[in-house]
Amino acid sequence: MKKPLIKSISKYVKLNSEEENLIETFWIEKTLEKGDYLLRNGETCKTDNFVVSGTLKAFYINSETGKEEIVYFAIENWWATDIDSFQKQKPSIYNIQAIEKTILLQIHYDSFQEMLRKVPKLERFFRIILENYLGSLQRRIVLNHVLDAEQRYFDFIEKYPKIANKVPNYLIASYLGITAEFLSRIRKKTRTS
Amino acid sequence: MKKPLIKSISKYVKLNSEEENLIETFWIEKTLEKGDYLLRNGETCKTDNFVVSGTLKAFYINSETGKEEIVYFAIENWWATDIDSFQKQKPSIYNIQAIEKTILLQIHYDSFQEMLRKVPKLERFFRIILENYLGSLQRRIVLNHVLDAEQRYFDFIEKYPKIANKVPNYLIASYLGITAEFLSRIRKKTRTS
Repeated sequence: MKKPLIKSISKYVKLNSEEENLIETFWIEKTLEKGDYLLRNGETCKTDNFVVSGTLKAFYINSETGKEEIVYFAIENWWATDIDSFQKQKPSIYNIQAIEKTILLQIHYDSFQEMLRKVPKLERFFRIILENYLGSLQRRIVLNHVLDAEQRYFDFIEKYPKIANKVPNYLIASYLGITAEFLSRIRKKTRTS
Repeated sequence: MKKPLIKSISKYVKLNSEEENLIETFWIEKTLEKGDYLLRNGETCKTDNFVVSGTLKAFYINSETGKEEIVYFAIENWWATDIDSFQKQKPSIYNIQAIEKTILLQIHYDSFQEMLRKVPKLERFFRIILENYLGSLQRRIVLNHVLDAEQRYFDFIEKYPKIANKVPNYLIASYLGITAEFLSRIRKKTRTS
């Protein structure tokens, strides 16, 4: 069960089998059923969470509309962690919930620090995946105001085809900042053109 | 001139004087006058940029309103780099411009990789500052939809008092997603209460 994590790390950092075994000892498997919360607004994010299988949504409630707004989705080989809450061990301002049965690998905050001390080359792995995520988040912020809704949808399905297949349309609409009805019109238009 | 960078790194990683000297060799000083562009939309961000002094704004043009939208500000001891463009060496989708005379330390993409190979403990420094920045960016995205404009303004001046002092109000208003007139009303109310 811990192989997908090792495989993910090995994309960026070469590990020998001793290091692989050592890293594996720090992680604990956890299963969430559909609807289970991994983290609730106000709780401290005590673990860093690697998704082995399943899908989660990170979201908060818009104070003006009362509606759910998506911060991000997490599917297999992604991470589902409130990094601000985890890094500073302070309460989170959003929620993370499984939208289908999900299997995670979790590492506690203290174990995370210890793992980095024992395998310092992991710093490189986390540096690179943080760059990747930060880059895609900045890109999303800008494109949300530069592209129109239709272009954003095509950008999304091109970049995240797996998420587009797994996540209900009303959540994709929320992620894109459009209504579900508008997304449905875009999809219909695409199929008939 | 390179001391602020070394000091910034030393907050998170212990360097000996040999490492300090080696790191310094990779960075080049650059001065921007007020209004100079560090990066334009469509250009590739060839350097990682540490701000020694001055202020920059990262922005794009909203396609609906034609107005400038702020992605972030960068002042002394911060970074002014399109991480997506720099990391992947692909064209940027936003602009970075000096709003006053600014002194930077720059490192080219290839030198950055070489520096990390020669001083691997820097991976830890970049991992931590990326976590910091990512955490604050996610926080900003959520708070923009959870707090009202007045609360966002107070959150901003509490968190970034130096930027609040240095940056013109109309740019702070853009960062907060409100009009300059509305910001002016909030400030007036605060002073008289």
